[in-house]
Amino acid sequence: MAAMSDAPAGSESHAGLSKHRLEALTDGIFAVAMTLLVIELKLPEHATVHDPSDLAIGVLGLIPIFVGWIISFFVLAIFWFSHHRLFHHLRIVDGRLLWLNILYLSFVSLMPFSSALAGEYSRMLFSQWFYSSNMILLALLGLLKYRYVFRHPELWATAVTVGFYRGARFRSLGLMVVALVAVGITMFVPGAGNMAFMLMVPISILSRRVEQRS
Amino acid sequence: MAAMSDAPAGSESHAGLSKHRLEALTDGIFAVAMTLLVIELKLPEHATVHDPSDLAIGVLGLIPIFVGWIISFFVLAIFWFSHHRLFHHLRIVDGRLLWLNILYLSFVSLMPFSSALAGEYSRMLFSQWFYSSNMILLALLGLLKYRYVFRHPELWATAVTVGFYRGARFRSLGLMVVALVAVGITMFVPGAGNMAFMLMVPISILSRRVEQRS
Amino acid sequence: MAAMSDAPAGSESHAGLSKHRLEALTDGIFAVAMTLLVIELKLPEHATVHDPSDLAIGVLGLIPIFVGWIISFFVLAIFWFSHHRLFHHLRIVDGRLLWLNILYLSFVSLMPFSSALAGEYSRMLFSQWFYSSNMILLALLGLLKYRYVFRHPELWATAVTVGFYRGARFRSLGLMVVALVAVGITMFVPGAGNMAFMLMVPISILSRRVEQRS
Amino acid sequence: MAAMSDAPAGSESHAGLSKHRLEALTDGIFAVAMTLLVIELKLPEHATVHDPSDLAIGVLGLIPIFVGWIISFFVLAIFWFSHHRLFHHLRIVDGRLLWLNILYLSFVSLMPFSSALAGEYSRMLFSQWFYSSNMILLALLGLLKYRYVFRHPELWATAVTVGFYRGARFRSLGLMVVALVAVGITMFVPGAGNMAFMLMVPISILSRRVEQRS
Repeated sequence: MAAMSDAPAGSESHAGLSKHRLEALTDGIFAVAMTLLVIELKLPEHATVHDPSDLAIGVLGLIPIFVGWIISFFVLAIFWFSHHRLFHHLRIVDGRLLWLNILYLSFVSLMPFSSALAGEYSRMLFSQWFYSSNMILLALLGLLKYRYVFRHPELWATAVTVGFYRGARFRSLGLMVVALVAVGITMFVPGAGNMAFMLMVPISILSRRVEQRS
Repeated sequence: MAAMSDAPAGSESHAGLSKHRLEALTDGIFAVAMTLLVIELKLPEHATVHDPSDLAIGVLGLIPIFVGWIISFFVLAIFWFSHHRLFHHLRIVDGRLLWLNILYLSFVSLMPFSSALAGEYSRMLFSQWFYSSNMILLALLGLLKYRYVFRHPELWATAVTVGFYRGARFRSLGLMVVALVAVGITMFVPGAGNMAFMLMVPISILSRRVEQRS
Repeated sequence: MAAMSDAPAGSESHAGLSKHRLEALTDGIFAVAMTLLVIELKLPEHATVHDPSDLAIGVLGLIPIFVGWIISFFVLAIFWFSHHRLFHHLRIVDGRLLWLNILYLSFVSLMPFSSALAGEYSRMLFSQWFYSSNMILLALLGLLKYRYVFRHPELWATAVTVGFYRGARFRSLGLMVVALVAVGITMFVPGAGNMAFMLMVPISILSRRVEQRS
Repeated sequence: MAAMSDAPAGSESHAGLSKHRLEALTDGIFAVAMTLLVIELKLPEHATVHDPSDLAIGVLGLIPIFVGWIISFFVLAIFWFSHHRLFHHLRIVDGRLLWLNILYLSFVSLMPFSSALAGEYSRMLFSQWFYSSNMILLALLGLLKYRYVFRHPELWATAVTVGFYRGARFRSLGLMVVALVAVGITMFVPGAGNMAFMLMVPISILSRRVEQRS
């Protein structure tokens, strides 16, 4: 809100728009997408539940889908956090950054579909490849956003340092590698692709070193 | 929030309400509608997937629906951006503008239905006509909002220039033309209506000239 | 946000909480409920669509459901606007008002169900009665909120006048009458209950007189 | 927003991020989860409704599911209110609190699934156990958040008192007991587990004494 008064009257298209509402739209789309992930968890149908043990078996059979759901929830949370950290540094947003962000949000909103596909057909290479592509595109668009902001100091509220940019770049590239490793694992051990996501712990630790060393 | 203190106590219905919460409701409805678009992308059913190639064929068969989804996502984003740019200039909102905005939001919330209808029955003229009608009504109501604000300086925080209004009018009329061209294409080449949306690039470029020349 | 600093440290439970986040939750629940209404509009199924005219007939057959949808959208918008106008006057919120508001929100979130029930079974008295009950409870809880705020000046940012309260009371009672008339019409002319909602125009005009006369 | 300027440029990862957007994401996820609860209320199918009394019987047969829905709505509201009260005291958020909050939100977003499971299979111990586990994890993570904030004064905007912390701890432990009692009741009287939630009234009253005595 305060940022609005920074733009001269009638010229916001040249000087950049306030970031407030783009953040609100972004937070809204992330919130809906993260909550819709749960829709892929379908209740066992009455027809298949004859006694309590059937229900337990039905729900326990969902465990691989639960694992996929929690991974997708945290993947989206990581992208949200990254967005938050970047926009923290911004004072205003220009047209290019806005449309880059909208394209990015379209792949955020696609995640419930990709996640449901990968959960439902976790042993098939195609669905893992689809899910990983969604994640790679998100990481790539996230990186392009960081690069754009890093190169346009006129948008900053507070300085974006080289270390900050390199840390984000390292994390984005790391996420792409994780997504590719998940495809590779699925190729040899169908259904085990999600194990790749354990790599996100060392990537996170290393990225902090990259950030501080720069 | 700051705008609230502008209204004298007990008289907000005459002096106009703060715009903050109308923006929040608008951002929320856009965020939900944009994320719900993905619901039209339905997973291939287990019954039809016997081996991995069936799954790939099933998902690749969704490509026309994917194209429709991304177009609807960007159409909604264009309307959201237009709303953002207009409300940027406002200090307060009066009753007429509020209800005009609510009517506009009802057609925003209808988009997931229209988009699903057009995607599911993309070769039928009726569904393209329905989708285009939704878009034309959104463009028309958007234009009425701009006109109303342009003519009521008492609502402004910063001046709405003639160029700003003419640029918006050009874009609204352009979107209506695109929607009609999509119907026309479907009439002769069923399933190709979405090609009309490529017209949005020259419209966007021309609208900027209209805005700056005025 | 500014309101937060009004509460002495560590005593917000006695002095009242800031209204900001309750507004955010309220706007979010209204936005989701208003957008979910569209889910009751179901696409004609492929099995019943053999040629384009089947599709047109299928969609045109949805017209009563469209009418119900747009009425529910505007009913929720009216309640949202009423909430907005009331909270505009508040500085802080206490526990009772917060829980009254949560109970109110539970019936807001029930509207997509009630609206779908009334749309699907529009010729049956029970479904109209259910829908009207939901609306009456919303109007009643809305009125209780207004009454509570009117009687607790310690929560105000700006004064709540007698006229403001009486106008809101008139509108709430009017909405209850509309809901009852809809049940009455359905009793004699099944499927025509929605005609009662045309009464909302004179109620709105009269309520403004009540507000200004007081 | 104001809190942003408190963080030195380029060092927000060390000094903590503003809480504004985490609140927005949290409010969004709560709003979507609370509204999605209603999806478990499914309309009686046309096939089973031959005359008006069938419809009434169908909807009245949903009463146990309605009871479960309103309980889940209020359980989520209690957690939301608790989040609101805690974040009210914060000035900034650090990485640990942020990820603790994200984990907490994942279980908030799971509630529509758990609630639908418990409603659909209310007479089976497994579903009550699943629902209670979700609630216990939410209460536990909520308690960990309070404890973390209580021990990190560098994050505070206003002081978190011992009484405030003990009151919250009492409520969290109380919610865990309620969830366990619900499982216990279901063990002996299938379908009556929800009666345990009446315990939340004395817990709430007692927690206020704990808060004020400390």
